[in-house]
Amino acid sequence: MVNVKETMGGLEWSVKVADGSSRVLTPESGPLIRRVQLGLEGLVLKVWKFFKKAWDLGVEDPKKVIHCFKVGIALTLVSLFYYMRPLYQGVGGNAMWAVMTVVVVFEYSVGATLCKCLNRVIGTCLAGALAVGVHWIASRSGDRFEPIILGTSVFILASAATFSRFIPSVKARFDYGAMIFILTFSLVSVSGYRVDKLFDMAHQRLSTIAIGTSMCILISIVVCPIWAGEDLHILITRNMEKLANSLDGCVSNYFMECASSTDDEEDFHKKLQGYKCALNSKATEESLANLARWEPAHGNFSFRHPWKQYLKVGTLIRSCAYCIEALNGSVGSENQAPEFIKNHFSDACLRLSTHTSSTMKELAVMTKTMRKSSKIGFLVGEMNNAVQHLHKSMESLPANIPPAQSPSAESSETDKSTSTSTNNNSFAVPLMELLPIVTVASLLLEIAERVESVVDAVTELASMADFKTEKVEKKLQQKQASVNNKHDKEQHQASQEELTMKAFQQV
Amino acid sequence: MVNVKETMGGLEWSVKVADGSSRVLTPESGPLIRRVQLGLEGLVLKVWKFFKKAWDLGVEDPKKVIHCFKVGIALTLVSLFYYMRPLYQGVGGNAMWAVMTVVVVFEYSVGATLCKCLNRVIGTCLAGALAVGVHWIASRSGDRFEPIILGTSVFILASAATFSRFIPSVKARFDYGAMIFILTFSLVSVSGYRVDKLFDMAHQRLSTIAIGTSMCILISIVVCPIWAGEDLHILITRNMEKLANSLDGCVSNYFMECASSTDDEEDFHKKLQGYKCALNSKATEESLANLARWEPAHGNFSFRHPWKQYLKVGTLIRSCAYCIEALNGSVGSENQAPEFIKNHFSDACLRLSTHTSSTMKELAVMTKTMRKSSKIGFLVGEMNNAVQHLHKSMESLPANIPPAQSPSAESSETDKSTSTSTNNNSFAVPLMELLPIVTVASLLLEIAERVESVVDAVTELASMADFKTEKVEKKLQQKQASVNNKHDKEQHQASQEELTMKAFQQV
Repeated sequence: MVNVKETMGGLEWSVKVADGSSRVLTPESGPLIRRVQLGLEGLVLKVWKFFKKAWDLGVEDPKKVIHCFKVGIALTLVSLFYYMRPLYQGVGGNAMWAVMTVVVVFEYSVGATLCKCLNRVIGTCLAGALAVGVHWIASRSGDRFEPIILGTSVFILASAATFSRFIPSVKARFDYGAMIFILTFSLVSVSGYRVDKLFDMAHQRLSTIAIGTSMCILISIVVCPIWAGEDLHILITRNMEKLANSLDGCVSNYFMECASSTDDEEDFHKKLQGYKCALNSKATEESLANLARWEPAHGNFSFRHPWKQYLKVGTLIRSCAYCIEALNGSVGSENQAPEFIKNHFSDACLRLSTHTSSTMKELAVMTKTMRKSSKIGFLVGEMNNAVQHLHKSMESLPANIPPAQSPSAESSETDKSTSTSTNNNSFAVPLMELLPIVTVASLLLEIAERVESVVDAVTELASMADFKTEKVEKKLQQKQASVNNKHDKEQHQASQEELTMKAFQQV
Repeated sequence: MVNVKETMGGLEWSVKVADGSSRVLTPESGPLIRRVQLGLEGLVLKVWKFFKKAWDLGVEDPKKVIHCFKVGIALTLVSLFYYMRPLYQGVGGNAMWAVMTVVVVFEYSVGATLCKCLNRVIGTCLAGALAVGVHWIASRSGDRFEPIILGTSVFILASAATFSRFIPSVKARFDYGAMIFILTFSLVSVSGYRVDKLFDMAHQRLSTIAIGTSMCILISIVVCPIWAGEDLHILITRNMEKLANSLDGCVSNYFMECASSTDDEEDFHKKLQGYKCALNSKATEESLANLARWEPAHGNFSFRHPWKQYLKVGTLIRSCAYCIEALNGSVGSENQAPEFIKNHFSDACLRLSTHTSSTMKELAVMTKTMRKSSKIGFLVGEMNNAVQHLHKSMESLPANIPPAQSPSAESSETDKSTSTSTNNNSFAVPLMELLPIVTVASLLLEIAERVESVVDAVTELASMADFKTEKVEKKLQQKQASVNNKHDKEQHQASQEELTMKAFQQV
């Protein structure tokens, strides 16, 4: 029996021992209880955190919760069907195959479910037919050869089918089918049944699998369908938007160092890091494109929607993201350009980044709405003008900045000549100080070039997928026409300056 | 009856019709036959290509072929065990579960197989126990409530288990277990058996699953084991080597434009593109690290080998690869620096790239052999010296190159001053011409910085995984000591020049 007394602010634990006397527990055991208590608290906290995380995941993406309910419904229906005795008797003990089919085949997206269903049906039929044949041959060849023939055939076919799963083209489409092929072939060929009973069993098994697959397909298409194709479509457009935001944020942060509150800062940081999503999305894009091919026409997507072109666009977006990664690295490096040089370039760089990102954003809108954009040509033109502008401001650097101190002369040869220097046009800034800003400018130029190839790929996609033509606003048309006519730069300098101002306001 | 006659270089097909007369087939059918022939040829070619590809795959990676044979052996053994009637009777009709277990659970690496086996056993036991409980409660609650209780429990548990598969920490380790949990729970709870028969069935099923899993584990560990941990280890070291080669090739190609034969060129191109493997290996690395955690001690790897640190190293390698991607872009751009500027930088850039890549190669050797390197400190020091050298050659540019023409003056202000220019120390090269070379230099500096963080991560790995100490050669020790002592750069300029020469020879 344990007694707890409160003594002078602390707790005293005493235990009645077998001989009747009472022993006060020494402080040694105190920490033990404390430790258990702490351990329990830690466990509760861990479990709490786990559930919090799960809850957040559900709130963030309700589609996942819907998918779970769909699986629950499908499984309950098929289980109850299996539970009902009369029906159960009808399809024999094989009714469990219906339950198993639902558990194994019901996937997150319609494409994945269809892919698995077809794989399961084709794999089962093919392997079943082959196995019945082998079984028949084996049963005719006598008791001695029967196990040899069966074992050899299982060994050869299982090895070959396993190997086929390593071949990329098979793996992408028929991985599950190959597994089902092995499973069915082994089960059927080695089963001890006579061939006529085998046909009976095959009929039952196929009918239960048909029940399971048709239920999965029905529920996954009818109840809040989740399309792999749509997911791919959204992923690509979102990556474009994120890239545009990252680029904007990164460059404006470098040149303007905008002061902001901590809340905004967190948001800003998140925006800045957005491009990282595009860096590692290759595997996801490929698997989604693979699954999308199995899906029937839905929404704006036809059955033969050019999903492969999305992969091309995705790859080009990723190549932009690599450059933004390098840009982020050089923007964040300790080695910073002097203020007056930064100021000289800030105009041109900000303008280029704004035009590049608005081109990217327009591409995102174009892809998202599946309409041809009337603005995109104009935006690319503006981007190219901004590229020219940046080139010019590089060329004009010696003429624009005040003469700085010449770099500490190292060789004796140069000492002689520096004394007479009065040159205002010469470039007296050490190259080292220019290094960060020139890198930023050069990477911006590279990004603009890569964005142009994204524009080409999206335009190709637009013609392949028959994007609708946008109703062109009159104003915009006029603007574009005026730009096309006055191609020499001096004449529309005023309007360019206006655009630059706009760009600043946008940033 | 069809007769074929050869007439004047062509074939004539004649058909005997029912009335006895013979009709010559008109040329219309010629193209049809031709088309069928062409179609067949195309099909044969396609099949041939497919098998050629499969054969190449097998030759390239014999481990995959071995894995296929292992699956074949395991499946044949378990199938024959299922085929033997006496044994078959012993474990009941549930023997098929052994076959199914082998097909589903036998994975490419030991880690994946162990992970699936444990998941299968734990999932089955947990769900089985829970299902028996629910079944017992339902059977006591009367005929009306029984299906309601069963259906509700299946719905709730299936939904919850499906949702848990979306939680990253569960998905990484217990994805398969959650699926097996749903499957077993539905099958057992809804089965029409009485509870006492259920126990009998559970015993049989568990014993067959035990047979299947133990056979899989045994064969996957004993026969030519393929370890996920070892694969991760090899992947990381190979990525380091590829990055080093790409960097070397890219920079030397830019500065030296080495003429080579077409055969060499193909090899060279392959080497140049090697870094791309590192760009997209994130998913592979993560899944391998996840599987490696399940593996017992093997080779040089203990059970608690720090696989997570490999992921950290991998991420840092990838960040280098992003920079190399950007470098490749700017090296390949049309805008090229003038020859004399290229020559000015070629020495310093080549030196830096050589030192960076040899640091990377040393890291690869260090990781591969799992020995601490005595050279690595020296190599990092040399790399940093090369960084300083590149900085210096940037600072010294105005002093070293002959005065070029001043850029075409654009503003009237500068016109006044240029006339008096006699300055030899001034930088009269337009910035635009410097753009490509400065970008290359800046990216090289960034890469060197990132490689240093890879060095830190690998050093951390070395201490975490208790890498052995290398037997230090006397010569090298002396060399390092001399470098540490003479830290001012002018004093060991001679030795540096020697190293640069070596670097050139290596390139």
